Amino acid sequence: MSSNIVWHSHPVDQQSRAEQKSQRPLVIWFTGLSASGKSTIAGALEQILTQQGYHTYLLDGDNVRHGLCQDLSFSDADRQENIRRVGEVSKLMADAGLITLAAFISPFRADRRIVRDILPEGQFVEVFVDAPLDVCRERDPKGLYAKADRGEIKQFTGIDSPYEIPENPEVHIHAEQVSVAEAVNQLLAYLHESGVLHAGYEPVAIEA
Amino acid sequence: MSSNIVWHSHPVDQQSRAEQKSQRPLVIWFTGLSASGKSTIAGALEQILTQQGYHTYLLDGDNVRHGLCQDLSFSDADRQENIRRVGEVSKLMADAGLITLAAFISPFRADRRIVRDILPEGQFVEVFVDAPLDVCRERDPKGLYAKADRGEIKQFTGIDSPYEIPENPEVHIHAEQVSVAEAVNQLLAYLHESGVLHAGYEPVAIEA
Repeated sequence: MSSNIVWHSHPVDQQSRAEQKSQRPLVIWFTGLSASGKSTIAGALEQILTQQGYHTYLLDGDNVRHGLCQDLSFSDADRQENIRRVGEVSKLMADAGLITLAAFISPFRADRRIVRDILPEGQFVEVFVDAPLDVCRERDPKGLYAKADRGEIKQFTGIDSPYEIPENPEVHIHAEQVSVAEAVNQLLAYLHESGVLHAGYEPVAIEA
Repeated sequence: MSSNIVWHSHPVDQQSRAEQKSQRPLVIWFTGLSASGKSTIAGALEQILTQQGYHTYLLDGDNVRHGLCQDLSFSDADRQENIRRVGEVSKLMADAGLITLAAFISPFRADRRIVRDILPEGQFVEVFVDAPLDVCRERDPKGLYAKADRGEIKQFTGIDSPYEIPENPEVHIHAEQVSVAEAVNQLLAYLHESGVLHAGYEPVAIEA
């Protein structure tokens, strides 16, 4: 048996891709200082969402800086181009129907604004992962602050390159005051309230 | 009730994303002259796959040239960078567990090779949409060949920029000899034989 299909009048689009996944596409954008906890929180949220049946993807420095953006430095212009490209890829991922998480320092307000503006209305959630510079410097899991202090890394955000605080983020996580599980629950509560998650989500506890 | 989850030891990866979608991630790369039928065939295949429950995404000039690659011209170097970026995005899409279709002229053999090489083994399928230059020039749905003939477009593939024929594509479609439905069925047969599709696919008839 074969079926007759008229494909030009019904191309596969964001809506049909999202309906197939029973979810609302979205870009959840984590911004904050190096070592503030962006990737950890985003990764934990992604795991919880996946376990609950949502279709997700996580973009971060690990899968972008060695591939799509391998030609870019950390100059202001290249940081801007880095975020522009990641924003465009986030848009494609959301167009694919996915709940897309992006974890990048993304220090400049104008660049984050550009990402918000290229996405369809209501599909950008800005999450400020707010940890004091002293706390981040203390953690310094990759030794980057130490290198920046010694002048071995130039234009390091918080040291000799500015971080512009979000003025009106959808979610503000006080990362030095909450556990990863609490941060994830704060995000789940926001996503639930804004109608992204199905009814009946449960707060989670997470062990490291 | 809350669950205790150790997320660092089980990050969400390609395998878990693909298992969630009950499919094997793949990049199906359509190459050929302008107006050879790449986008039409890719769009029809995507629609059939989606109707059969597969999770897909289609990358083409429409969603890339005005976004991610809006800064690029059609010079050799920029064509190369265009395909490099699309290849990296295809890799991310496949990493997200999706069956990714990419329809780009992609005239240079070395550039297509680079995309093949950055993907995990067996996740790249090269589809040569082979239509004679005369046929493409006759179709010319966007009037591009006419513009190239008048010199209004420079470096147009097949006119004053070369197209390097694939030497060993996984699928070779003789686009001037088959209908879109036949091309789609040729692709479905290949995907079936190579274990990408579940058992029991049916050939389809497609009305334009």
